[in-house]
Amino acid sequence: MNASLSFSDRLATEIRKKKNAVCVGLDPQWNQLPVVIRRRVQEVGQHPSVAYRRFCFDIIDVVAPLVPIVKPQMAFFEQLGPMGMKALYEVIRYAREKGLLVLLDGKRGDIGSTAEAYAAAYLGAGDASPWGADALTVHPYLGTEGLQPFVDRCLSVQAGIFVLVRTSNPGSAYLQAADSDPISVAQRVADWIETTNQSIDDSGTYGPIGAVVGATYPEELAALRQRMPHAWLLVPGYGAQGGTAADVLPAFDQDGLGAIVNNSRAIIYAYQKRPELSPERWQQAVQDATTQMIGELSPSYRVVEQRR
Amino acid sequence: MNASLSFSDRLATEIRKKKNAVCVGLDPQWNQLPVVIRRRVQEVGQHPSVAYRRFCFDIIDVVAPLVPIVKPQMAFFEQLGPMGMKALYEVIRYAREKGLLVLLDGKRGDIGSTAEAYAAAYLGAGDASPWGADALTVHPYLGTEGLQPFVDRCLSVQAGIFVLVRTSNPGSAYLQAADSDPISVAQRVADWIETTNQSIDDSGTYGPIGAVVGATYPEELAALRQRMPHAWLLVPGYGAQGGTAADVLPAFDQDGLGAIVNNSRAIIYAYQKRPELSPERWQQAVQDATTQMIGELSPSYRVVEQRR
Repeated sequence: MNASLSFSDRLATEIRKKKNAVCVGLDPQWNQLPVVIRRRVQEVGQHPSVAYRRFCFDIIDVVAPLVPIVKPQMAFFEQLGPMGMKALYEVIRYAREKGLLVLLDGKRGDIGSTAEAYAAAYLGAGDASPWGADALTVHPYLGTEGLQPFVDRCLSVQAGIFVLVRTSNPGSAYLQAADSDPISVAQRVADWIETTNQSIDDSGTYGPIGAVVGATYPEELAALRQRMPHAWLLVPGYGAQGGTAADVLPAFDQDGLGAIVNNSRAIIYAYQKRPELSPERWQQAVQDATTQMIGELSPSYRVVEQRR
Repeated sequence: MNASLSFSDRLATEIRKKKNAVCVGLDPQWNQLPVVIRRRVQEVGQHPSVAYRRFCFDIIDVVAPLVPIVKPQMAFFEQLGPMGMKALYEVIRYAREKGLLVLLDGKRGDIGSTAEAYAAAYLGAGDASPWGADALTVHPYLGTEGLQPFVDRCLSVQAGIFVLVRTSNPGSAYLQAADSDPISVAQRVADWIETTNQSIDDSGTYGPIGAVVGATYPEELAALRQRMPHAWLLVPGYGAQGGTAADVLPAFDQDGLGAIVNNSRAIIYAYQKRPELSPERWQQAVQDATTQMIGELSPSYRVVEQRR
């Protein structure tokens, strides 16, 4: 991957190469792990973080040739203490070695020098930052000056952020759909994203500031897509949370770009719905579920193929 | 400290014992560290996280007899990669060994099993969680169901959270003061906090769900205090950000409880304004600045003394 390209250009390049916009979420949870991985670690008395690393490495081996980007969920690594953080670090490195873009799902958000510290910690692929991620999810609650340090960092190290706008959980309406005068809170955040992307002199269509917009509110998704024509959308809620391929189609532009659709559990724990597979072959279930999702989303990337 | 007490009762006990509600923020930043600490680490070629640990340990040694609680800012430790996280872990342990309550400023926030993972990671003093903190700051943007897993964890391990309501930065108004119908976003979050604390069967006045309300908007601080009579307030913005003792007084109840006032830089980097001190005596500046702030806030805790 050409590190001198903007995050947006790297993402578009990988989507075109892999012919899909699937983001595989890496959400390791001990009780969900394939029994063969848990057993190996328990037998030799290793720390659970060893199992998390093994599990994520094994998934990366399967999905690296198939999808453009993975999204490690930091909370699950943080839950294992300092050893879990070390495993996270290794997972990020491994994913990048295998040619995947890495979007860290850490939902960080603060102001001033603290926001600068978070941005410097995570944003900057490979050796450009201590953790080496291409992009990070970010909370908007502290307002625009809480977001600006992340924007500045995106520009200095060719990274990206995805700001929470309209999340996929049912209770998100409590704040995000609150009708503030004259627009909702989510629209307010969306407008900042659009303005900021437009203000950045960038050759491509999309700027470095993406938006998290859930698949579970298709009408709002379409409206927010129109409201932020220069933002990549990260669309969670596909599969397990009820979002369908038809629901996410409005997130894509006419070239099949502009969005990535995340799926975590239905891919990484697909073995749980495949009792006919022997336990050692759990990776086959990951591969099949990934391929199936790519197929389901083909109405979006088929457009890309026609245009090439 | 009696771990079977609720976080709220532990906090009230420590405030009464120390006769003040000062929270010392632990914000290690390499370029700000006393030169004696930086030099020692550089001379032997150690990782910067060694300096962060040393700096925080030295501050804890000074403030542990003086104040009830410290607030490590996670971002600065995260900025040093996995080694920084190890230092954070050790700082939390050390602070608790010295009898301090630990409020982790991580501003986490997510939904479902991810929120559960963050809560399980950080909430639970000592060995009750992998990181062992008494309390954590939390983002409300994902709505009430994003907060509920943190509440559940507070009840199961006697921990506390402080939800961002009205932060001290000038740009916070963009979202938080947005007039949603019929109340502002900040008021909306405040109402959830109050309702939730009231719904928790607790013997004390204050529940486990606190609120972050900046010192820089004294009128809103007073109004939010009234709106959340059962919530501890964490008041940032004192000192460096312009908040004064008079500004924070409305945060306290008539018994001198109900709030903690944070100060980070003006205490931990106080040596920078004391050129007459020899570099080795930077801890003296920490002690003097802490004592000074305790004195400034005495109009609030003097009430406590009268009532005992």
